[in-house]
This record gives sequence, structure tokens and C-alpha cells, in this order.
Amino acid sequence: MTTYTAPIEDMMFLYEKLRNNKNYNEIEKYKEITPDLVKDILDEAAKINQNIILPLAKAGDENPAVLENGVVRTPPGYKEAYSKFIEDGWMSLSCDPKYGGQGMPKTVSAFFDEMLSSASLAFKLYTELTLGAYNCIRHHASEDIKNMYLPKMVEGKWSGTMCLTEPVCGTDLGILKTKAHEQEDGTYKISGQKIFITSGDHDLTENIIHLVLARASDSPPGTKGISLFLVPKYIVKENGSIGPKNGISTGSIENKMGIKGSATCVLNFDEATGYMIGPKNKGLNSMFTMMNLERIIVGIQGLGLSEIAYQNSLNYAKERKQGKSNSSKSQNGSADLIIEHADIRRSLLNMKSIIEGERALCFWLSQQTEVSLNHNEPKTKQEASDLVSLMTPVVKSLFSDLGMEITSDAMQIHGGYGYTKDQGIEQLYRDNRITPIYEGTNSVQAIDLVFRKLINKNGDIVENYINILRKDIETESSELKPYQEKLKIYLEKLIDFTAWIKEKIKDSKDDANAASNDYLKVLGYVALGHSWLKVLEVSFKEVSNNKKFYEDKIQTAKFYFHRVLPRVESHYSSAISGSGYIMDFKFN
Amino acid sequence: MTTYTAPIEDMMFLYEKLRNNKNYNEIEKYKEITPDLVKDILDEAAKINQNIILPLAKAGDENPAVLENGVVRTPPGYKEAYSKFIEDGWMSLSCDPKYGGQGMPKTVSAFFDEMLSSASLAFKLYTELTLGAYNCIRHHASEDIKNMYLPKMVEGKWSGTMCLTEPVCGTDLGILKTKAHEQEDGTYKISGQKIFITSGDHDLTENIIHLVLARASDSPPGTKGISLFLVPKYIVKENGSIGPKNGISTGSIENKMGIKGSATCVLNFDEATGYMIGPKNKGLNSMFTMMNLERIIVGIQGLGLSEIAYQNSLNYAKERKQGKSNSSKSQNGSADLIIEHADIRRSLLNMKSIIEGERALCFWLSQQTEVSLNHNEPKTKQEASDLVSLMTPVVKSLFSDLGMEITSDAMQIHGGYGYTKDQGIEQLYRDNRITPIYEGTNSVQAIDLVFRKLINKNGDIVENYINILRKDIETESSELKPYQEKLKIYLEKLIDFTAWIKEKIKDSKDDANAASNDYLKVLGYVALGHSWLKVLEVSFKEVSNNKKFYEDKIQTAKFYFHRVLPRVESHYSSAISGSGYIMDFKFN
Repeated sequence: MTTYTAPIEDMMFLYEKLRNNKNYNEIEKYKEITPDLVKDILDEAAKINQNIILPLAKAGDENPAVLENGVVRTPPGYKEAYSKFIEDGWMSLSCDPKYGGQGMPKTVSAFFDEMLSSASLAFKLYTELTLGAYNCIRHHASEDIKNMYLPKMVEGKWSGTMCLTEPVCGTDLGILKTKAHEQEDGTYKISGQKIFITSGDHDLTENIIHLVLARASDSPPGTKGISLFLVPKYIVKENGSIGPKNGISTGSIENKMGIKGSATCVLNFDEATGYMIGPKNKGLNSMFTMMNLERIIVGIQGLGLSEIAYQNSLNYAKERKQGKSNSSKSQNGSADLIIEHADIRRSLLNMKSIIEGERALCFWLSQQTEVSLNHNEPKTKQEASDLVSLMTPVVKSLFSDLGMEITSDAMQIHGGYGYTKDQGIEQLYRDNRITPIYEGTNSVQAIDLVFRKLINKNGDIVENYINILRKDIETESSELKPYQEKLKIYLEKLIDFTAWIKEKIKDSKDDANAASNDYLKVLGYVALGHSWLKVLEVSFKEVSNNKKFYEDKIQTAKFYFHRVLPRVESHYSSAISGSGYIMDFKFN
Repeated sequence: MTTYTAPIEDMMFLYEKLRNNKNYNEIEKYKEITPDLVKDILDEAAKINQNIILPLAKAGDENPAVLENGVVRTPPGYKEAYSKFIEDGWMSLSCDPKYGGQGMPKTVSAFFDEMLSSASLAFKLYTELTLGAYNCIRHHASEDIKNMYLPKMVEGKWSGTMCLTEPVCGTDLGILKTKAHEQEDGTYKISGQKIFITSGDHDLTENIIHLVLARASDSPPGTKGISLFLVPKYIVKENGSIGPKNGISTGSIENKMGIKGSATCVLNFDEATGYMIGPKNKGLNSMFTMMNLERIIVGIQGLGLSEIAYQNSLNYAKERKQGKSNSSKSQNGSADLIIEHADIRRSLLNMKSIIEGERALCFWLSQQTEVSLNHNEPKTKQEASDLVSLMTPVVKSLFSDLGMEITSDAMQIHGGYGYTKDQGIEQLYRDNRITPIYEGTNSVQAIDLVFRKLINKNGDIVENYINILRKDIETESSELKPYQEKLKIYLEKLIDFTAWIKEKIKDSKDDANAASNDYLKVLGYVALGHSWLKVLEVSFKEVSNNKKFYEDKIQTAKFYFHRVLPRVESHYSSAISGSGYIMDFKFN
């Protein structure tokens, strides 16, 4: 089985030393969230994740969720762990105190999301969609509905789902077929089939609150005729207690490559009672509130799985002896630890430099998210919101793709033992493999970035972002200079690439489309470089206070700038070759 | 389930049009292997692979090989398919007619290896190691042993294994512990444990011939004390019939991520009778005959799995509708086929350009292998042998790594359906995932390339190879010119990188070691570019004879030169940053 130690020191470093964000620090209600408080939370979080959740990973893989007589049973141990999880209040961590939440900022809850992803992604999904549904209801539903549903969801007694996908429509929601017929009392009868519904049914909670996209019978075709409905598994009576079963049945559950503990359901809605959430025909907008936060969390999942893959690889490399290193002085037959081999060290540092860069970028994004939701100034809020919307597809795709690289490299370090089931390494890859797919495939994310996020009605967002970077590479500092210069080379490429792609969006959309994945990668690697620069700034200042920690940071950054950032080059060169030869190709 | 159509047209194109290899064409015994004969063989090969072997892939994944009461049972259908396989003579395809083989060159058998890898890698492994053992016995054993064992192996009635790995030694065979005690009659008693033994036990053949590395009781420690022994599952009597069971038992079989139909065994040798093969203490040399051929075949496995992944992705992209393409003229809610989207086309062409480049490179390597084994001139033989030895780690690693990229991209094109088990796509990834690990991890291959293959006792091999490329980019041809110029840019990088790494091998081995993976990739991508150049040369000449086929080749080549070859840049830039900051790092 894998082992895991929550990286609290690195998280606290970010929380204490990387708060140099004026806008975030101005948010009144977070002023009392002191480092001491956060440290206490993380210590407790580490305990439940290391001791209670981590063993569920293997249990869920070996005993997947099953559908028996119409009822979904979660793997052994899930129920007990879930009870403990909600009893200790982890579900409510970031929720509004008005509904029983603890009101922690995303700068803290993102750390918890990472730990939980490291421990067991399959288990996490039972809690994650509840928070997604919570956010959506909180932003778009009526007060009555909020008061009726949210406290139970915050408590974790009821869970939530997002029901978007249908057999012929995943990415393309315009063609969805689920129907909603309005009743005389203002409620709707929902009928249709939804597939790939995460936690669509299970035995962990008393009720399941489905948020369902459907087309009202008098709505137009296409995306402009889609509304959002709240459809509970059990009808909730006026006094808030559980009533009769609603018209929803579980058709089947998917047999998947990984996250086998998570029940991915086909749900059949047959005249199920639903309540409209938000304005009619604006269902997609409402759902996207939820989707965008979810997408960042998918990025964090990739980060969490990368972290546990790294930790286990490092441990193995310090135990396994094989071959002689170049510097080996021993002359007999005995082998050296594989951590002494340059290529293994390179692989480990590749993981580490990506993971720590991602964690820092993610911390910055959590700050921006909080500013976008909670700052007093509308303009400041809007600017933060635009940056979040720019970086959301980047974090979702880059972190999930790099999670694949890292979990795969972890298998490679383990050799044959990585390919067998005993050590749990290959499971990390299989579990992570869903992250580039769900919540919109990474291809769709890249297209979203290029065609919708670079420039929006508020202005040239990517230009604003690039200007932040431009400023940060010009701080006067002899220690930072070599890194700033290196980053500058690749920032120039990003700038050129951005100019190129903006042109293409206008006059050759296929060129832009075919370049979108490479563009996302270039923006992402430069953003990670920028995050590392900010980490370096602190590290050079503080190195005398904690030599080991900060020297480690500086060395890891060096690796990132020398060995990871140059990936930008190939992405850029190949992407700007255009798409004529791609579009003209006649596939057999 | 996946579908598969053997790419016979492309294979025949190589066989007919890319034979411009003087040395290969001089080999007398292959002059009668006409294209018509080869076409007949490939047609028959396609039938058995498409109809009989392909269904075994899913069957084996769902019903893995099991160990019951000390006996390994293969998945349902394997026995019947294996009988048909050997009945139709597929085991003997490339074997020596002296022992009942059909004497086909590797240029033909490699096509069969590819098809079989596409159809079912797990099934293939039961046949592949027999050929490995056959080659080893044929090269190193006495006439008596050859006459006793080879005919049965060629017929497929007996199978073979390679027993190298032990619990503490995989890559590093110097520390192996299995012991061999010489008996008065010249035989040995072998005792020890071997792990990860592919096809170590099964129910497909009457006998299993293990080739076991062990240390004779009077041999020195380290790699110089290892000998090779033939240890049959059942002792073979003097008349060639099966005698009593030898002292070998199957301890367990591995529970793996993929290739579940293949039995990967722990074998316990307890005073098992063995016969020494080849000279005492030279066991590693003898085993490497087999290992080198095996490594090329592992590359071909990656190619085969890539081909079936591509075919299924293409089919899916032509069926699945989702979203509107940029050129879409339809204005209603209906979606376009995903093959009309630029990013999906890019992904498909990426696969296709890699696969066809690999097939062409592999064909060239098969020719070289044949020259190295069968040419009349010792010097010509030696030169070919050196080129094969240079390119073996490249093909093994690059093709297996790119097989991961391609099978993973195939999942991505299938979206959620790629992650579920129904369509068989995720299985392609899981099955392929062993290829970068077994027969020496790709990290070990890269180190082997850099430290042992660039320059050997016969001279500067990589320089000879680079000179071949130098010559080929200078042919006068206006049509080829843009491609030659593009290749030249990256060949220059290879030349610079080669000079850099040769220096480092001398004075800074860790720099060379940390750069080895990048170096292998650079050499590999340039070699694929070179193969494409040769394909282009023919294509421009022949385009009027088969417009569709050759225009398709030219377009695919264009993709390779524009979008794949530039990967060289990042590998080169990051690798030459050295290793000081890697070796100095203090891992916690």
C-alpha cells in the first residue's frame, strides 16, 4: 500500500510567506484566519487523511462500488469513514456560517482538497460534488430552497450531484434531450436519462440532491433552452423531513479504469419532481458557476495524486539498491541505492519542481478566487474574477496532464513492482487518468481558453496577466536575476504566441484551434515559472532563518527553470506551423 | 470491444518500395521471398489476428491467468487459439528450416509481431519468449541440445522462458543469488527463486524450457560469475519424449495493471536439473543475444498497440458528434462529427505520423538485423550489427513511450467512454504500460545507449549513423528540399548534443547520465524524421501511380516534420543544463 504524509510545512510556507496579495489581505472576514489556526486545521486534516481515508484507496479499488437490487453499495469502510468525516466537520470547512459552515477561505480548503485527493480520490468524489451543488444552490436558488437544502448538505447528511451528460451529449450540451414539464403548482416533472453521474447513487447519505439540466417543454432547442432543476432522490417535506422516493432509478454503474470506489451512475428520471433553480433557460449559466470551481478542484486532484506518487517514489528510491552510480566508490558486487543515480534524481526533481510550483500557483489562484467573491470593490472583484476565469482551464488541464506524467514516472521508478498491484502505484495512475477527461476534456479546456478566456467583455485578460508577469521579472535583485532572465525568454515566447493566436482567432480559427493545447501548455509552464519566481523571492530573503527548507526551494526552482520551463520551446514551434495540412488531410 | 484491420497496404509499401538497401538485397537466401509471397503471408496473418487472436484481448483482461493447485490456467479461449496458431505454423515463421522453421526474414516476421501485438499482447507473450529462447539456444547451445529442443520449440509444442530477475535484482544481475551445483554427470542442480517470469508456467504446451541465469558454486561474485542453464519443466528423455517433472514450482502469479492474460510467475527452483548453455561464467553474454532481439520486439509491441489505438480513435471520431467545428455551416442545434474539429484531427495525425514513421524505421532496422546475421562479408555484417546495437535501445524506449502517449490520447478522444471498460480503449493503455518497464526500463536503455552504444570497440558508431543521415539530407531534389532543410536543423542539434555528451562521458558522467533520456529521444525523433525522408523520396516518385496513398504519405510526413520533430528542441535545451544542481540536491 502507498504511504502518505501531508506536506504541511510547504502549505504553511505558502500561507505564511506568500500572502503578499494586497487585495486578498483586504478581505475583512479572513483577517482572523491566523497561521496558528490554519496550522491546527492542517494538523487535524493530516490525521484523518493519513489514518482514515488513505486505506480506503486500496479498499475501493479492490471492492468497487456495486449496484445490487437497484441500490448502490459503497466499498467496505466508506460508510464509517464518511460518518467520521462529517462528524468532524470536514464537509463544512469552506461553507457559509449562515448554513452551518466554518467559513474558511479557499486558500485553506484547497489544501484540504489536495490532501483528500492524495489519500483517496474515489472517496473524495462523494464529498466534492456536494460542495459543487452547494455552491450552485447558494448562488442561484431561492431563499426557501437554500434554507431547506443547504444546512443538511453542509452537515453532510445529504449529498449532491451534477447531472449534465446524456448518451449523445457530453461536451455539447446544446443537444440534450431531458425534458421538464411544468405542473400547476410550479414544480416540474423531469424525464430523461443522464449518464456518467458521479455519486449518482450511494449509501452514505440520507438524501441525494441532484442538479439536473433539462429542457422545459416550451423552451427553444440548443443551449438557450436549457434550465437547471433541483431533483431530490427523496422528496423533502415542508418540515424538512424526508418524504417519499422521487421518480429516479439507477440504471447501471460504470466499470471503469480507476476511481472504482466512486459510483458513476446511469440515472433514469421518470416524471421525477424537480424545482427550477435560477432563471428559466439560463441553466447553463447557473451550472457553470459550479463547473468553474469544480475545474480548479480537478487540477488540485492532479496535484494531490502527484504528491503521493512523488512521496512513494522517493521512499522507494531510498530503499531499492540496483546498479552502480557514477560516483560509487564500492568495488565489490553490491549495488547502490537508486537515488544515487543521476537519471532517477532527475525524475524525482522533475516531480518535485512541478508539484511545488503547482501548489504555489494554486495558492495564488485561491487568493484570486476569494477576491473575486468577497472583495468590497466591484472593479477589484471583476479583475480577480477574470484572472480566475483565464487560469481555470490552465490549472484543470496542465495539472491533470502533469499528474499523468508524474504518476507514470512513479511507476517507472518502481520498475516491475510499479506495474503490479501490491504497492498501489499503478492505481495512482489509473485514478488520476479520469482527471484529463471529466469536467470537460483537456482538449475542450484548451479551446475554451483560447476562444473565450483570453479576451472577454471586460477587456484583454491575457494581456493583463502578462503585464503582471512583465512587472515581476523586473524587480531589482541580483539573486533573482538569473531566474528572471530565464523566465523572460519564455515570457517572450508566450507574448509572441499570444499575438499569433489572437490574429488566428480572427482570421483562421482552425489554426487557433489546432494550436490551443500547445498554447495552454505554454501559458501554464510560464505561470508555474512565475509562481516559482515568487517562491524564490521569499526564499532568498528568508534563507538564513531556515536554511534547509529554503535552500531546498532554491535548488528545486533551479531544476524547474533548467529542465521544465524549456518545454515551452517545442510547444511554440510546432503550434505556429498552422493547420492547413491538418484540415486538408483526407482520413480514410 | 476494439476492432482491428491489419495495415497490410502500408506493410507491403515498405516491403516493395523501401528495399533500397544494397546489403540486404545481397543476402542470397531471401531473394526468393517475393512481394507476392509476402502478401499471401500477411493476408493469412491478418485473418488469424483479426478473427482469432483479437477477441482474446478482452477475454484475458476479464479472466486473467490463475494459479490453482500449483498449476497455471490461461484465460478461456487461449488454448484453442494457441493450437490453431501453431497448427498454422505461425510459431515457425522466422525460424531456421533446419529445425522445421520457414526461414522468413525479420522484415516479414516483424510485420507479424506488430499484428500480434495489436491483437493481443498478453497472448503474444506466450509465443514470444519461446522465440527468444529458441534464438539463444540456437546461438549458444551444443548440437545435441539444439537437436533435442529446437524442433519442438519451433513447432510450438514446447515453449520457452527467460529467467533473469530475482527479488533483489532486476536491472543489476551482478547480485543474483540462484546457485548451480555441478553433478558428476556434467549436469547441474539449480536452486533459487526467480520472479517476474513471463509465461513461467501455463497450460498451452507440453513442456516449458526455462533459460536460467545462475551462479555455479565455484564461480566468482558479480557479473563475471554468471552462467546460463537450460532447465526444462519436465526432464526430456534421451529419445526426446517427456520424462519426470523437474524440481520447479510456481510460487505465485502477479496481479498486474494490464496484460492480465499473461502469467507472470514466481518460480522456485529446488535442485532442478539444468544443462549449461554456452561457456561457463559467460551467461550474461549468451542471454544478451536474446535480450537484444527481445528489446526490438518490445518496441514493435508499442507500435502494434499504437496502431490499434489509432484505428479505434479514427473510427470513433467519424461516428461521434459533439460541438460545432469552425467551418460548420449548419445553423441549428445539431453537432458536427468530432473528426471535423482541428484539435482532434491534430491528435489523430500525431498518432498516424508517429506510427508510420516507426514502422518505416523498424523495417530498416529489420533489414540491418538480417544483414548483421546473414551477409557474406564480415565487415558489412559488423557494421550492420553495430547500427542495430545503437538503435535497439532507441526503438525499445521511444516506441514504448510513444505507445503510452498514443494509447492515452486514444482514451482522450473517446472521452468518458475511453475511461470505461466497455470499449477496450483503456485496456490498450494498461497493456502497453509494461513495455517501458520490462526487458530493462527505459531509463536503463537510455544509459545503455549513452555509455555503451555510441562508441564501441569497432569505432564511433553514432558518428557512422549521423554520416548516413548527413548524406541523405543532401540528395538533390526540389520536392524533398523543404523536408531536408527541416531535418537538417534537428540533425545539427543531434550533432551538437552528441559532441556534448561524448565530452561528458569522459569528464562528467553524471551530466551524461542525467541527459541520457533526452539524448535517446533526440536521436529517436531524428531517426524517425530520417525514415520519413526515405518514405517521402519514394512517395514523390510514385505519386502518380497511387495518388491517394502517396498524397496521404506526404501529408502525414508534413505533420511529422512540423509538429513532432520540434520536440527535439526542448529535450536538447533542458539536457545540456548539466547535473550539478541535480546531484547536489539533498532529498529529505
